[in-house]
Amino acid sequence: MPGNQADIGVIGMAVMGKNLALNIESHGYTVSVFNRTSAKTKSFVENHEDKNLVPSFKLTDFVNSLKAPRKIIIMIKAGKPVDNILNQLASLLDKGDVIIDGGNANFHDTIRRSANLTKDGIYFLGMGVSGGEQGALHGPSLMPGGQEKAYEMVKPILTKIAAKAHDGTPCVTYVGPNGAGHYVKMIHNGIEYGDEELIDETYNLLRNIVGFNVDQLSKIFAKWNQGELDSYLIKITADILSRKDDLSSDQSVPIVDMILDEGENKGTGRWSSEDAMAIGAPQSLITESVFARFISMMKNQRMHAAQVLPGPEKKDQVKPDKDVVEEACQALYFGKIMSYAQGFVQLEMASKTYKWHLKYGKLAQIWRAGCIIRAKFLQKITDAFAKKPNLQNLLMDSYFAGIAKKYQKSARKIVALATLDGIPVPCLSAAVSYYDSFRAKVLPANLLQAQRDYFGAHTYHRIDRPGTFHYTWYKEE
Amino acid sequence: MPGNQADIGVIGMAVMGKNLALNIESHGYTVSVFNRTSAKTKSFVENHEDKNLVPSFKLTDFVNSLKAPRKIIIMIKAGKPVDNILNQLASLLDKGDVIIDGGNANFHDTIRRSANLTKDGIYFLGMGVSGGEQGALHGPSLMPGGQEKAYEMVKPILTKIAAKAHDGTPCVTYVGPNGAGHYVKMIHNGIEYGDEELIDETYNLLRNIVGFNVDQLSKIFAKWNQGELDSYLIKITADILSRKDDLSSDQSVPIVDMILDEGENKGTGRWSSEDAMAIGAPQSLITESVFARFISMMKNQRMHAAQVLPGPEKKDQVKPDKDVVEEACQALYFGKIMSYAQGFVQLEMASKTYKWHLKYGKLAQIWRAGCIIRAKFLQKITDAFAKKPNLQNLLMDSYFAGIAKKYQKSARKIVALATLDGIPVPCLSAAVSYYDSFRAKVLPANLLQAQRDYFGAHTYHRIDRPGTFHYTWYKEE
Repeated sequence: MPGNQADIGVIGMAVMGKNLALNIESHGYTVSVFNRTSAKTKSFVENHEDKNLVPSFKLTDFVNSLKAPRKIIIMIKAGKPVDNILNQLASLLDKGDVIIDGGNANFHDTIRRSANLTKDGIYFLGMGVSGGEQGALHGPSLMPGGQEKAYEMVKPILTKIAAKAHDGTPCVTYVGPNGAGHYVKMIHNGIEYGDEELIDETYNLLRNIVGFNVDQLSKIFAKWNQGELDSYLIKITADILSRKDDLSSDQSVPIVDMILDEGENKGTGRWSSEDAMAIGAPQSLITESVFARFISMMKNQRMHAAQVLPGPEKKDQVKPDKDVVEEACQALYFGKIMSYAQGFVQLEMASKTYKWHLKYGKLAQIWRAGCIIRAKFLQKITDAFAKKPNLQNLLMDSYFAGIAKKYQKSARKIVALATLDGIPVPCLSAAVSYYDSFRAKVLPANLLQAQRDYFGAHTYHRIDRPGTFHYTWYKEE
Repeated sequence: MPGNQADIGVIGMAVMGKNLALNIESHGYTVSVFNRTSAKTKSFVENHEDKNLVPSFKLTDFVNSLKAPRKIIIMIKAGKPVDNILNQLASLLDKGDVIIDGGNANFHDTIRRSANLTKDGIYFLGMGVSGGEQGALHGPSLMPGGQEKAYEMVKPILTKIAAKAHDGTPCVTYVGPNGAGHYVKMIHNGIEYGDEELIDETYNLLRNIVGFNVDQLSKIFAKWNQGELDSYLIKITADILSRKDDLSSDQSVPIVDMILDEGENKGTGRWSSEDAMAIGAPQSLITESVFARFISMMKNQRMHAAQVLPGPEKKDQVKPDKDVVEEACQALYFGKIMSYAQGFVQLEMASKTYKWHLKYGKLAQIWRAGCIIRAKFLQKITDAFAKKPNLQNLLMDSYFAGIAKKYQKSARKIVALATLDGIPVPCLSAAVSYYDSFRAKVLPANLLQAQRDYFGAHTYHRIDRPGTFHYTWYKEE
């Protein structure tokens, strides 16, 4: 095995790492591959004998197999394992080499790691990779953050392997310094949580209030995928709802009805909400979708509660009218708009807090293909930021304001219907509350400030003059 | 000034520190006082010449003025200043002395500080103090956490200065190890955020949907304070709404209408939500109340949005019926129950996560008086945990289940009314969604798990057999 021959190396031979390596190789590059347990590397290379893959079984061999300046993508479990491999690599690499962490690292870790590696003169990119296994293989959406100079070194490769949007633009851009790439990926995932929860709530209410069966629901989602909701998640929902249980001889049982309703999570959703809290961003959609997963995990308690806590009486329930499917479609789109409005506001507040100078339009652009939230809708966001790069809230763009105005009626009706009928709609109702809060000239926070001043002397501001005031609530003061 | 004479010392002569010192002194103790800037100590002692207060102007003098083992309460700004004073004290104190941090420290800091001081043999209590200025002076609710042995040393003093509930029980108890006291205070404050937001939403919808004026609303809250909503926050709300602007010659302008509607926060609410995220607790009520404050702070954007984003058309709005005040009262109580249910679930999950062995009934008991959330309602929670100390969710107690069952109709009606009318009710609607999620036999998380398995091969569990499964969604797999 001759040294210094490979264009780039990939560490981590789980499915994402393997598929990313194959994707890169398919564009004419020689790819070095390494895994902690050698067997995985061996079997991977043996299964792809015709590819330009260079296996290494020691990390030093792997490092030596790469052309200078070296380019290494690590695709391993986020957390401690990343610190371990970075420590090992730091002692083997030369100044000017580039490490790319393609896992779902917490952006705080990425900021710390970037600072540490900078001391050794090693470049570090924290890169969000979205699109799942298929995306990694055929073209993911890539969100690299770190030194711009390092990005330029790997740009030709990333541009080739990234998904291409309908207009041919590659779904990759330089996101910003240190943790910016992983932050943007975190928000991408959070938005994905919101999209899923909005879809799931809509499915649930149509099923339980109207009484559609799963086949009918599959057709409804398939139809919605032809319109403005056109997106990967709507498409796979239609597909999922058409599938039957593969472990049952009875071919009429929908697979969804055999799946336990405990929604798991891998952390990026909760991180999004945690940072929303830290930087003061109203982020109720992602947050309610995370809480929906938490509640779903309490299956045993729920089964017990279902026996004890009744829903509304039959006579209090409301009959949906014939337009309910169209109204649900509009409510879902309305909810999606609120969710993305909140997501981009959080990105803006993070950009200011962490000094990243994010380019919001570029982010919408690279989410148009390759990633899980890819959707026709993202072209609308791309357009909005193209018109006004520093748009403060998507709702202030004429397209989104117009849709919100038009669809609010359906959103209100669907939330009221579900609320009166006992079907949980945490995200859809958060969407309406967000809309009504954001467009409120006066919120009852004036009463709140009075309460805070009353019990804690926290003072308040006035509407008629500047300054800080305290009211004499007690005679003894 | 003779040495070793004072029973206890207080550091920090802002209003909370001063009032706590006066409270302690009034129970027959001699209290040493110290402040970083001496002038404050001087004027405080001069203004209370008849009290047994011992001023010190150097920290060493302060330390030397205390009887052994020394007991020191610090009442200063949370964060860095606390670390600074702890570092100074550590070098001056002896083994077995006790420091009590009575500020609103983040519980993570308290855990760290406790571990550090333990190395020096110094006891450390992180103590929540609630009740504002008046509480500190006349009897606060106290939530001390740390070494139980240290608690025993200060128990006689704390028991005397604490508020007394209607049955005479002092509002103080040993909460648990290290950060437990500050955690419980954090949740207390978070619950307080939720209470305030629920009140503010109810005020806002009655004002805007029904058209009550502020005087009428004051009377409505005063009346509610005679019933099951009887609580400090309802009482002060009635009082606030009766007050006129003190800076205006026009005696008809309610003060609330002159206060800017930007809801500020000091961190404990967002910390509650951050930790809910970290430990997997569904905590939508506190969280929505924090987000409501965040949105309210965007006053400029809201004023602009109000021009562009319309509410529902007049014809889509709903006329409230004559029972709307009673329904709003029931909706508010329903919301309060959901909020406290979530709060105690978070305490239970935190207790397990951080190994604190919290006694939930005791916590409800010490919140019955002295603190901001004091309410008749807390006796009901005390009773529920007395019946079943390990009650998993308040909603599984017969009293709360009964109220939820009875009041859900009003809660649903009020949320539907506000939703259709364009009045934001983020917390009230989160309350209904929580109730309906918690009592759901099947949530759409089954569809979610299918989606996750589809795009990310995240696998799923089944309802009919144990194990982890992956469905073959693609032919190429």
